[in-house]
Amino acid sequence: MQGAAPAAQSLDFDRAFRTRLRDLLMWRRDVRRFRRDPLPRGILETLIELACLAPSVGLSQPWRFVIVDDTATRAAIRQNFAACNAQALAAQTGDRAELYARLKLAGLEEAPAHFAVFADRSTTQGHGLGRRTMPEMIEYSAVTAVHTIWLAARAEGIGMGWVSILDPQAVAAILNVPIDWKLIGYFCLGYPQADDCIPELERSGWEQRRLPPSAVLRR
Amino acid sequence: MQGAAPAAQSLDFDRAFRTRLRDLLMWRRDVRRFRRDPLPRGILETLIELACLAPSVGLSQPWRFVIVDDTATRAAIRQNFAACNAQALAAQTGDRAELYARLKLAGLEEAPAHFAVFADRSTTQGHGLGRRTMPEMIEYSAVTAVHTIWLAARAEGIGMGWVSILDPQAVAAILNVPIDWKLIGYFCLGYPQADDCIPELERSGWEQRRLPPSAVLRR
Repeated sequence: MQGAAPAAQSLDFDRAFRTRLRDLLMWRRDVRRFRRDPLPRGILETLIELACLAPSVGLSQPWRFVIVDDTATRAAIRQNFAACNAQALAAQTGDRAELYARLKLAGLEEAPAHFAVFADRSTTQGHGLGRRTMPEMIEYSAVTAVHTIWLAARAEGIGMGWVSILDPQAVAAILNVPIDWKLIGYFCLGYPQADDCIPELERSGWEQRRLPPSAVLRR
Repeated sequence: MQGAAPAAQSLDFDRAFRTRLRDLLMWRRDVRRFRRDPLPRGILETLIELACLAPSVGLSQPWRFVIVDDTATRAAIRQNFAACNAQALAAQTGDRAELYARLKLAGLEEAPAHFAVFADRSTTQGHGLGRRTMPEMIEYSAVTAVHTIWLAARAEGIGMGWVSILDPQAVAAILNVPIDWKLIGYFCLGYPQADDCIPELERSGWEQRRLPPSAVLRR
């Protein structure tokens, strides 16, 4: 922002924008079926710039992005996913195990872009503000950056998948990051094979969404 | 969605929407200075509905919203904040302590709407998918719901403040929620006294935002 023209005093959004924002929320998906065509040059960097507008506790900006391009590194991540997913399958029983085995839970083979996000628990940026009683605010701040990328990517027609079926310590070792960085997730980015407003886990019969009132208490 | 007309096959967003989405990200603030006028009836419920469109691990939808209207309950939360904030101030030294003392870190007195968000770690929804190696995905899912409310509220001209200077166990006790619910945050909602595209902690000299490239590695 430095050197830019003075910002407007205020900014209002209209009903048309809010309707489209709702559409964006409805059509964002956790994508596991990607086309292999590459993304436009520089798009991941643009998305990361937007992510850095996310809220962070004490203005600590604890998000750390690791863009993963190396073939051997990607293969090591895929191996870790395969091992963790086999263990997860082994923990399911009966019909659930059969259903689990049929799910496609990551697009690590096909997605043209890969990145990991970590939260830097050792950062002194923010001078500790707001994280004395809730140190996990550092991780939560990094999550809002992830969610920002997710929405901004979907607005570009790009799908994102969040891979959590991984051993966080193994991933940190594979990516050779500082010891205080905590893995938030590993992400695949690419054009989806199809768009949908229903989550794939719902379409596959794994789980159904519940209505919002069931999640609300009053005090 | 049940009973509604079939959804479109796909949904595209144009450059104008993406520009406005960027504006939304730039003008979202952690608001601590609220006007006292009430919000439109039902708006919090509408925002919670949108929040339930957020991503969640295994479609577990672990977010739990506690709308806090009771005067005595709000007073107990304010007291807890005051105690935690006094401890946080005592931990600062020198010029930082003086600066900290001048910060306004919550709008608990003025904000017309209050709610807390918890993550239900005991939920069986989602059948454990995606959280075997990273159980914290439950909390991260609830954070994306919070971030959704934040953005959707700002699009309505409504500001939100995230209060983390609280004892999470004390808040859970005050709000009398199940033992497995983990506090994600306590939130104030209301019309802001002013809009700004610069975080208040930056304007007050507490911290400066760093440029995105400093948060990016390549592997």
